[in-house]
Amino acid sequence: MKLMTLSEISQRLESYEETIVFKLIDRAQFAANGIIYERGKSGFKGAGNLSLLELRLQFQEQMDTQFGKYCVPDERPFIKSSSAPRRKAMVDDRGILIEDCNVINLTEDIMRGYRAIIPLICEAVDDGHYGSAVEHDVYALQAISRRIHFGSLYAAEAKYTADPEGFRKLIDANDHEGLMKRLTRKTVEDNIISRVREKTIATQALVNREIRRAIKPEVVVQFYEECIIPLTKRGQVQYLLNRKEPESHAA
Amino acid sequence: MKLMTLSEISQRLESYEETIVFKLIDRAQFAANGIIYERGKSGFKGAGNLSLLELRLQFQEQMDTQFGKYCVPDERPFIKSSSAPRRKAMVDDRGILIEDCNVINLTEDIMRGYRAIIPLICEAVDDGHYGSAVEHDVYALQAISRRIHFGSLYAAEAKYTADPEGFRKLIDANDHEGLMKRLTRKTVEDNIISRVREKTIATQALVNREIRRAIKPEVVVQFYEECIIPLTKRGQVQYLLNRKEPESHAA
Repeated sequence: MKLMTLSEISQRLESYEETIVFKLIDRAQFAANGIIYERGKSGFKGAGNLSLLELRLQFQEQMDTQFGKYCVPDERPFIKSSSAPRRKAMVDDRGILIEDCNVINLTEDIMRGYRAIIPLICEAVDDGHYGSAVEHDVYALQAISRRIHFGSLYAAEAKYTADPEGFRKLIDANDHEGLMKRLTRKTVEDNIISRVREKTIATQALVNREIRRAIKPEVVVQFYEECIIPLTKRGQVQYLLNRKEPESHAA
Repeated sequence: MKLMTLSEISQRLESYEETIVFKLIDRAQFAANGIIYERGKSGFKGAGNLSLLELRLQFQEQMDTQFGKYCVPDERPFIKSSSAPRRKAMVDDRGILIEDCNVINLTEDIMRGYRAIIPLICEAVDDGHYGSAVEHDVYALQAISRRIHFGSLYAAEAKYTADPEGFRKLIDANDHEGLMKRLTRKTVEDNIISRVREKTIATQALVNREIRRAIKPEVVVQFYEECIIPLTKRGQVQYLLNRKEPESHAA
């Protein structure tokens, strides 16, 4: 059980930025296709009231579960699954001190935030490519969710370790606002924002815009500012409020 | 039934370049993990002699089949599936004149070519992230396969239409080599090669190489030169040798 340093965690979060940018660009190659988000309009017989996206998530996550994806603390399904993994995944908790990682589950907020940027990155029409659109929705959602849940768990623990007394007081007082304030590192956030802006520009520098849709760097910036960063911090607060010292230490 | 022009087809192929580059970069974030390609070592109970990658492909393609993916002429599963689609996909054949598109199936060669570049893009170790590695293998293979099969079908038909007599002679003579020569447009290939080199560089221009693995532009170039371009042309030859005029025209 080796605790990652805050710097190692930040580096991991930084390395997820390209992945998120790539997934958003890939999704933008298909139209918004609003119908794929409408409940009961999946076009699947017997699929009841699910939207096509929810159905795709269900299929994907059932598959991923079998491959051991949700055995890792920072992976979280969007739709509850009842099946058990068929292969043992490498579970590496690296010092997460919480009884049930699933207490921190931001998938609903992630879905809301993601749905909000679809009209900003995709063409506001229906191109009929519903299957491809939900496929790319799933990949984007998974990359975003992993970034947020990884940051929620590991960064919170590392921040706590750097100042146990300060955090203990806020946790004992159940002081959400105080915790949020203490977790915030404005310079780090500013760096993230300018990095994702520049990466979105660089990634699309040679795109032929007549044949491939580009996404606006400011949309990615806004998404980080209004969704990814605040949700990661909300997850950190949840982690800290549910954090439990191991018995041997507490004795 | 609207035939795409050769220029429209080339543009579509060009727009796939970023997607392929993104998928290869994402795969490179995980180690080579050679064991995932070894038969009988999937770690799945009852999975018989399949490798973990083959198993993942099987799961993914069974899911994709239900979402209608393989109703589109340019999508081809790597592993034969017996299930039928659960939703009707938009099938748009755009003037492909062949009885069974599946006659053109280059998946085995694509797999061979892809496997050959894994040691060139991934770290030659085992990082235990087998689930993530095969997940990204599947996405990369699907993107590459779509590019090759799309180019095989549509570009061949457009090239034929531009010179029916010239091609008819070579087809009637079953002249593989002659067809290959006539299909080759050296300037176009040179443009593709320099474009993918530049795109791989631009996409990774701001990557922090201490924390995220970059791939060498020359590897992507080599992959296009030795795999993607030749296989697309081999598919075009197969298409032309199996091309059938519609009865109404032939009468």
